[in-house]
This record gives sequence, structure tokens and C-alpha cells, in this order.
Amino acid sequence: MSLVLDPAAQDLLFREARTANTFTDEPVTDEQVQAIYDLVKYGPTAFNQTPLRITLVRSPEARERLVQHMSEGNQEKTATAPLVAILSADNEFHEELPALFPAFPQAKDLFFTERTAREGSAALNSALQAAYFIVGVRAAGLAAGPMTGFDAEGVRKEFLDDDHTPLIVVNIGRPGENASYPRSPRLAFDEVVTTV
Amino acid sequence: MSLVLDPAAQDLLFREARTANTFTDEPVTDEQVQAIYDLVKYGPTAFNQTPLRITLVRSPEARERLVQHMSEGNQEKTATAPLVAILSADNEFHEELPALFPAFPQAKDLFFTERTAREGSAALNSALQAAYFIVGVRAAGLAAGPMTGFDAEGVRKEFLDDDHTPLIVVNIGRPGENASYPRSPRLAFDEVVTTV
Repeated sequence: MSLVLDPAAQDLLFREARTANTFTDEPVTDEQVQAIYDLVKYGPTAFNQTPLRITLVRSPEARERLVQHMSEGNQEKTATAPLVAILSADNEFHEELPALFPAFPQAKDLFFTERTAREGSAALNSALQAAYFIVGVRAAGLAAGPMTGFDAEGVRKEFLDDDHTPLIVVNIGRPGENASYPRSPRLAFDEVVTTV
Repeated sequence: MSLVLDPAAQDLLFREARTANTFTDEPVTDEQVQAIYDLVKYGPTAFNQTPLRITLVRSPEARERLVQHMSEGNQEKTATAPLVAILSADNEFHEELPALFPAFPQAKDLFFTERTAREGSAALNSALQAAYFIVGVRAAGLAAGPMTGFDAEGVRKEFLDDDHTPLIVVNIGRPGENASYPRSPRLAFDEVVTTV
């Protein structure tokens, strides 16, 4: 066995975990979200920039506003999931960098004075953190339903500001009836990995 | 306890896991890389597009070519790590889509005829997969040293082609002496999460 991670944990996080499209009514509590964050906040990012920001859409009024910006196939599940989170990148993360990466406080001025450089770095590193977050949702015994099918500019204007770029909207809860499609095939090792 | 993931697994993947900057001489085998891939290949991506590609840099000659493209602070560790992997995005992932997402074979022609749309989707989804890969390296009891400090265009020309965009170079192995910096602080929950 090449993995040291417990097989039950392998199943919980990857092998048995599935994207959910329906959910039960069981609420997702703030305590659960806090526990997820307190685990996945440790995932690595460049210069510890941790640009991911999370907007929990809890009020019925906000949920309705969000659903309007989702693509048609994502509207019903977004309307009915126990919790919906908008994951976004903070393109002004550099303001926090001297505190977040005390080993190299010059990073802010050496690499991130240009907005374009910040946007590129925030896009990559917040996507890493979005994946850690999805793993964390599963670590809480919940199912995630990550979606990229939405009007990003609409979501930005409705919930964020010009300094934040929405990445992914995630439905969160316990899987309901017929929650998942049959699992799709994955590429074989040799189709993905080459050695030089 | 809001998390159901075993505390030992929490430590292995997030709480105790650290980015390594030095490594022991113990090799990382192909079997270990295969086991990592066979776990993390199940992480979700949009339309199951799984655009991540992995180049294992094993030969001394290839390692030397890679080191030339790393930023100065990353050269020594990239030269000495037991294994180095170049993680890249396949911008032509749409060719595989009908096989990868049989539930919706129209996706290829509806959303991905334009290269720009493919590049954006591949950038986000391969970054998600890069994070799953880092988690997988840790699941194998190894340390990852992900780096974005390199000449991306140089790495592309040296090891890839115009259809692939390098994302992250990852050193992999068992941590050596003084492998990690002191852990940097993380943002508090309230600095990252807002509720609407």
C-alpha cells in the first residue's frame, strides 16, 4: 500500500465522495462551516497569500438573488440546497501579505504592485483553496455541489465588489434522493502522466 | 465535533502537513505516484474535464533543464528533491469530453469551441486538481513543495507544447533537515467568511 491515509478517509474524501445535485432538509450550521475553515485554512498557497473569500448565502432573499444569476440547469439545486457558498478571489490580498508571510515581507512590493499580477496569482491560489474547501466539506461528512455555470459578472455586482472575482458557487448539505449521476470515467494514469 | 474525518487524517493532510524546502534522499517511486493519482483523480471538476497533466522530471538531464527556468530561490530545492512534477493544464481537454462526461456529450460543442473559453476553464479546473494532487502527496505520507516561481514560458517550451500551460512545479519527498519555515498565520474566520 503506497498511501498512508486511512482507507476510510480515502473513501470519505475521494473514492466514495460524490458531487450532489439534491439535498436533504438538514441544515448546515455555522459551526460546521467554521470547522471546515479551521481545517482547510492550512492548505498551502504562494507566499501564504490565502486569497479565497467565502460568502455564505443564508437569507431567502439573498438566495433568490443568487439563483437569478445561475445557469438554468443549476437554478433548482441552488434554490433548495441547505447552504450555498460563493467562493471568490480577493485581488487585493497583497494588503495582508506582510502579516501573512512575515518571512518575506518584501513580497508585497516585489511581486504584487500590478493589479494584473495580483489577479493572476489570486486566481490560481484561490482555486487551490477552493479545492481544499471542497475536500473540507467532505471531511465534515457533507456533500459539495460545486458549480461554474453562473453569470460571474452578475454575481460580482450582486454580492461582491470590483476587487473580488467569483470563482465557484458551491451547494452544501447531505445528499438527497438520486443525488448523483453515475460516476464518469477518469483518464488512465498513462494519459495524464509522462516522465522525462 | 463538526468534522467526521479522523483527527489523524486531519493532521496528515492539513494540520501537521507542511510545505518542505529540503528532502531526504529516499526516492519517490512510480508506484507511489500511481497510488496518489488513483486517489485524487476522483476529485470533482466541471463536466469532469480533468484537464490536469503531470510531467515527472526524473532524468538528471531533464532536472538540470528545469532548474534553469526556476527562480533563484527555488533552484537548489528543485535540483535536490527526490522527485519533481510539472503540473500543467491541457487546453485541448475538450477532445476527451464526450468520453469523460457521457451524461452531456454536447458540452464540447456548446461551451468549448473557443480556445479562450477552454483556457479559462482549464486554468480553474486544473488548479483544483493541483490542490487535490498536493493533498494526495500528503496522503502518501510525503511532503509537497509547490512552487509558482518559475519562467512559465520557458518551462512550456522546454517540456510541453502550445496546448499546455504550466501551473505549478512541485517538489516531492520526505522532509529533510529544517525542511519548513515556522508556520505563518492564517486569516481569522471573520476575515474570510461573510454571510448574506
